[in-house]
Amino acid sequence: MKEKHNVEYFDTQNNINETSFSSLSKIQKIDYVACNSLVREESFKKKVRAFWHNDNKIQDVFDQFSENTLTNYYLPYGVVPDILIDGKSYCVPMVTEESSVVAAAAKSAKFWRQRGGINTQVLSTTKVGQVHFHWQGSSSIIQNFFDQSKQTLFQAFEPVNANMKNRGGGVKDIVLLDKTSEMDFYYQLFVTFETCDAMGANFINSILENLARNFSLLVAQNQALSDAGGVEIIMSIVSNYNPECMVRAFVECDVDELRENDNYSGMEFARKFQTALNIAKIDTYRAVTNNKGIFNGVDALALATGNDFRAIEAAGHAYAARDGKYKGLTKVEILNNRFYFQIEMPLALGTIGGLTLLHPMAKESLEMLGRPSARQLMGIMASVGLMQNFAAVKSLVTTGIQKGHMKMHLMNILITLEASEYEKDLAKIQFLNEVISYSAVRNFLQTLRQYH
Amino acid sequence: MKEKHNVEYFDTQNNINETSFSSLSKIQKIDYVACNSLVREESFKKKVRAFWHNDNKIQDVFDQFSENTLTNYYLPYGVVPDILIDGKSYCVPMVTEESSVVAAAAKSAKFWRQRGGINTQVLSTTKVGQVHFHWQGSSSIIQNFFDQSKQTLFQAFEPVNANMKNRGGGVKDIVLLDKTSEMDFYYQLFVTFETCDAMGANFINSILENLARNFSLLVAQNQALSDAGGVEIIMSIVSNYNPECMVRAFVECDVDELRENDNYSGMEFARKFQTALNIAKIDTYRAVTNNKGIFNGVDALALATGNDFRAIEAAGHAYAARDGKYKGLTKVEILNNRFYFQIEMPLALGTIGGLTLLHPMAKESLEMLGRPSARQLMGIMASVGLMQNFAAVKSLVTTGIQKGHMKMHLMNILITLEASEYEKDLAKIQFLNEVISYSAVRNFLQTLRQYH
Repeated sequence: MKEKHNVEYFDTQNNINETSFSSLSKIQKIDYVACNSLVREESFKKKVRAFWHNDNKIQDVFDQFSENTLTNYYLPYGVVPDILIDGKSYCVPMVTEESSVVAAAAKSAKFWRQRGGINTQVLSTTKVGQVHFHWQGSSSIIQNFFDQSKQTLFQAFEPVNANMKNRGGGVKDIVLLDKTSEMDFYYQLFVTFETCDAMGANFINSILENLARNFSLLVAQNQALSDAGGVEIIMSIVSNYNPECMVRAFVECDVDELRENDNYSGMEFARKFQTALNIAKIDTYRAVTNNKGIFNGVDALALATGNDFRAIEAAGHAYAARDGKYKGLTKVEILNNRFYFQIEMPLALGTIGGLTLLHPMAKESLEMLGRPSARQLMGIMASVGLMQNFAAVKSLVTTGIQKGHMKMHLMNILITLEASEYEKDLAKIQFLNEVISYSAVRNFLQTLRQYH
Repeated sequence: MKEKHNVEYFDTQNNINETSFSSLSKIQKIDYVACNSLVREESFKKKVRAFWHNDNKIQDVFDQFSENTLTNYYLPYGVVPDILIDGKSYCVPMVTEESSVVAAAAKSAKFWRQRGGINTQVLSTTKVGQVHFHWQGSSSIIQNFFDQSKQTLFQAFEPVNANMKNRGGGVKDIVLLDKTSEMDFYYQLFVTFETCDAMGANFINSILENLARNFSLLVAQNQALSDAGGVEIIMSIVSNYNPECMVRAFVECDVDELRENDNYSGMEFARKFQTALNIAKIDTYRAVTNNKGIFNGVDALALATGNDFRAIEAAGHAYAARDGKYKGLTKVEILNNRFYFQIEMPLALGTIGGLTLLHPMAKESLEMLGRPSARQLMGIMASVGLMQNFAAVKSLVTTGIQKGHMKMHLMNILITLEASEYEKDLAKIQFLNEVISYSAVRNFLQTLRQYH
């Protein structure tokens, strides 16, 4: 008999062995979870199945992306129909569960389409990997040995590198870094890569493993180095920090073009917008939220194109903290009556490999964008981030400027609720100092109507 | 006639007005995108529909989460069947497109289940919001005025605050911060909150808007302050940076229990593991990747429970850079032959509100976890992050230690490919210095068999 416990809902005697769970069929896994967790058994089983794709073959593809897969988790797939970037118009797919993200991007895109669109510039595309190792001998000895061995090391990974070289990329350089001032005996082989249209993590890791193996082998074969203790490889792994894989996106217009209505001039808006971004340069609490909004857009496009948003987030936020203080990624300059708004951020993306073409909707996303190169996608993604930030900051700084904004909001609600003129007057007084929301206004009217 | 351009695939004359696009029906939007982007029209339309949920009502729910929604983006929904946390066994749902993430968490969970499981501790749950404003008068005048007005301000937002207070939370305190040393005339009302089981962003923003409005109103009503220029509210907004909303998760065992086979002792493993984490304390390139792996797990659970992973990422990475250098979030201590491994990170989560109960699978996830409080979910999520990091670092540091690991890998592939003893010997030589992969070995055998 099935037994559910409030506190410990797997019986300790029934602890499942992970190996045995992973070898269950999908149906068996679902049954197991249905019976051994606090979900309502039948409705859980029904729901999980209802989220499967109707086509078994397509469902199999999703099941194989990950492990212990029971079903699919849906996220809304939407589009911003028309973002003008570098003179081209893009229909941009966005995957996000957060309301207003797509709407905000679309609104900003429209605003800037009418002011020349967005310009982008790929600043650099270098990726990084590291072989971390210990060496207890003198720094100059290992440095000399590395210099002598460098060509051999390059030759050794050439079979792995060749294909990427044919595509115009490959290993760019390897330098030996002496990190012993920060940790005893600690050195790095710091390797730089160009990975073209691939995100490149697998390629980089393959090269690094080859490099680590051959480097320690060469050291082991050298009598003097061996006698000094040899090298101990600690780990060899791609870095997700890519401050040399950078893109810039910017918009500009005459300050006067920022005027939207009689509530504030273009210069008033520009200055206040700039102040908000300057605050994100000096205040971490604001900076984090400023950048969070940017990643709302960036991640939505990353998801839609099968890119790894955790890698993008990690690189972007670490870059935001690069000079010792965490800061906003966007800035505004106002010069000669021109408003110039830009973002600079690291984006290591792929438009081939990984999930990009395996996920059926990621593939559609890339087609929708005209099968962009990784460099083009960098520009599009930074543009979406810029648009997101523009929408958020604009909304934040104008709510205070736009006199009557909340009054309009209140009037709309009152009209919807069919308030009389008398009720409207009372509501205007009541909500001078209160947050206006649909439910608050409805409650106020209900109370009013109850007593009158 | 439909015309597609290679470069500019929306005709500039046909630029769609965003307002008009958003008012199209879903079918019309799909038709528009199918006709006006580079997707293959019919297959796109078919695919988009195939990803709809069979139940229209459920599909409507997803369509309404966001804007301009065409269909659903599937991510695999899997589980780790049994993570032992604070003496309870949890079946933990994870949503991730990245392979090995779920498998790694499951493997670590099994390892630590046999060693007492994971312990968690919620360190603090305070959230933050800010009213940013300009004041051109003297600092002491505004400070005195704020002190006098504080009670009135609290009274003014009481109707908004009351419900949260009933649940045991609400506004904790408001302090006025003088930031004029960093920017002319810049001050903040720095507000702290307890939001119980809600993530709380909407509540916080409502309070802040009320506060900003009433504060500027009170200032405006004061003759002296008004004459000194009054205050200009720049913006009022929740902060996603939550260094006072922290959780710790840790595991511990005897060092000897880390020994898995004859290739390395428990202490060898412990030391190397610790070195890897120490490198993430001094090297940003490594730290970013270390933390990225943690967020692989954290975000997977955040997604599965309807929490906002952008907010979590932004807070976590900014926290990692809090002392001026971006560092890893995990650490190891080895003391008295005990291995102690822990993570500390900010996690502002909700188990009510937002998408948590609206998304059908997020709701199931929370039931699967036994309807946890936000505090419990903090512990579970930090545990998943810890397990992810353990798996990643263990794998990184042992691949180099485990002599014969790659040879075993090679032998497995050779056996699968039915290699003869002669072919095995040749392969062993060939792959001494080459990356071993299934395709590389298969290619090698094919070439071999072609010529022999």
